[in-house]
Amino acid sequence: MSLEKVKAVFFDLSGVLYIGTQAMDGAVKTIDRLRAEGYILRFVTNTSSHSYQMVKNQLNTLGFDFKTEELFTAPQAAKLYIQRRNLRPFCIIHDNLKPEFADIDQSNPNCVLLADAQNNLNYQNLNQAFIMIEQGFPLIGMGKNKYYKDAESFKLDVGSFIHALEWASGTQATIVGKPDAQFFQTVVDTTGLKNDECLMIGDDVLGDVQGAINAGLQGCLVKTGKFKADDLNRLPKQAYVIDIINQLPDLLAQFKATR
Amino acid sequence: MSLEKVKAVFFDLSGVLYIGTQAMDGAVKTIDRLRAEGYILRFVTNTSSHSYQMVKNQLNTLGFDFKTEELFTAPQAAKLYIQRRNLRPFCIIHDNLKPEFADIDQSNPNCVLLADAQNNLNYQNLNQAFIMIEQGFPLIGMGKNKYYKDAESFKLDVGSFIHALEWASGTQATIVGKPDAQFFQTVVDTTGLKNDECLMIGDDVLGDVQGAINAGLQGCLVKTGKFKADDLNRLPKQAYVIDIINQLPDLLAQFKATR
Repeated sequence: MSLEKVKAVFFDLSGVLYIGTQAMDGAVKTIDRLRAEGYILRFVTNTSSHSYQMVKNQLNTLGFDFKTEELFTAPQAAKLYIQRRNLRPFCIIHDNLKPEFADIDQSNPNCVLLADAQNNLNYQNLNQAFIMIEQGFPLIGMGKNKYYKDAESFKLDVGSFIHALEWASGTQATIVGKPDAQFFQTVVDTTGLKNDECLMIGDDVLGDVQGAINAGLQGCLVKTGKFKADDLNRLPKQAYVIDIINQLPDLLAQFKATR
Repeated sequence: MSLEKVKAVFFDLSGVLYIGTQAMDGAVKTIDRLRAEGYILRFVTNTSSHSYQMVKNQLNTLGFDFKTEELFTAPQAAKLYIQRRNLRPFCIIHDNLKPEFADIDQSNPNCVLLADAQNNLNYQNLNQAFIMIEQGFPLIGMGKNKYYKDAESFKLDVGSFIHALEWASGTQATIVGKPDAQFFQTVVDTTGLKNDECLMIGDDVLGDVQGAINAGLQGCLVKTGKFKADDLNRLPKQAYVIDIINQLPDLLAQFKATR
C-alpha cells in the first residue's frame, strides 16, 4: 500500500487534532489545506465521555472546518447497533452521554453497554455487568482503547474494563467503534472510495492504525497524545509515522509528487 | 502423585468450608475427623475484603476447630512482603482491611497494592494506580482470583482489576497469595512436610488447584462455591474432584486403604 492512492483522510480527534481544550500546532491549517487540495475528510472518534454535540462544539470552538456528516463517533454507532437489534442495554455510560441514550429503552435490560463512563465505572456497576454476562447477556463496548491522554494525565479507557470483564467471564465483547472493521467500513462507505484510498491517522496503535489496516485502509501513527516510544515496536510494518499532524500534508504531497 | 502420600490438607475457606454465614454441609465434622486421623491442617485464603480477625471470628462462629497459627491469608502475606522491602503502598483495599494496614507508611507511595476493595475499586483509585504503574512503580495484588461467590451472588474479585491494569500498562503484577508458589511454600514450610505430601482443596481452578500443583503440592477441586461446569475443562489432569467438602475424608481413606 502506498500513500499516493489516498483520496480521503480519517482523523482521530483527541491526541491528534487537539488535547484537552488546546488545538495541536498547525492542526486547523492542516484540515484547511487538505480540504483545499480536494481530500475527502472524516473525523472518527471513540470518545464516549462526551456527547456528539459536545464533540462538535469542541471542534467548532477550536476553529476546525468540518460538517456534521463528516463526524463519526463510537456512541453514535453503538446507539445505531442497539436500535437495529431492539436491545435494551444496561448502560454504564458517562453522565455526559445519558441524554443521547435517553430515548433508548433501558428497562429489563438484555445486554450490557460499556463506555468511558469514568466515575460510573464503579464496582457496583461493573459487578452488575459481570452478573449479567454470567447469565448469558452480551457485552457491547464503545471501542477497546486501553487508555488515553487528556490535558491532565493518562486516563484508563473503557477497553481496560471490557478486558477485565472478558477475562473474568471467559466471553468476548462486541466492539462498536474503532478498531471494529464494520465501523471503519461504515465510514469508508460514505466516501464512495475503495478502502485503501482512505488513510486513518491516530495516536492509538491498536484502535487507529492496526484497526484501519486490518479493515483494508491505510494507517498512520502520530507521535502526539498518548504516544509512547514503545508503541513503535507494536506498529504494523505497513504503517506510516509522523511527529505531529501538521506534517501530514507534506507527507501526502511527497507521495503524489513521486507518482 | 497420589493421595496416599497426603499428610496435610490446606483448605480454602469461602465457597469450600462456608458460603456467606453458612457452613457447608458436614464441613465442621470434616475438620474434626481429619484432625482426629492425624492430618496437619491449614486454612489458606485469598479473602481480602475481611481482616484476619474477621476471618478468625467467622471460623469460630461457625464452630470450626482451628488454631490461629493454622490460618494464612493473602493480606497477611502482602503486609509481610511490603514490610520486608520497606515499601510504601498506595493502598486500594477494603475499609475492613484498613486497620490491619494502619501501621504501614503510606505517605509518598512507591508501589500500588490492590485487594478485593469492592467499593474502593472506583475509577479514581484505579486511574491513580494506572498513572503510578505508568511511572514505573510496581503493582502488588492480593491473589489473582477472577471472581468469587458469596451468599448473594457472583462478585468480581481483585484479579480482574489486576488483569485490567496489567493489560493497560503492558506490565505484570506481583501476586502475593494464591496462586503464587512462594505463598504455598510458606505454608508448606510450617508443616515440616514435602510439597507433595500437602493437598490444597478449593473452588478456584487457577488460584487453588492449578496454583498448588504448579507449586508441587497436590490439588483437589470442590464443586461448591464459585464452581461452574466449565471449570472441569480447565482442570489440570493430576487434580482430584469432589462434590462437597464432606466427601474428602472418605476419598483420603480410600487411598490409604489401597496402600
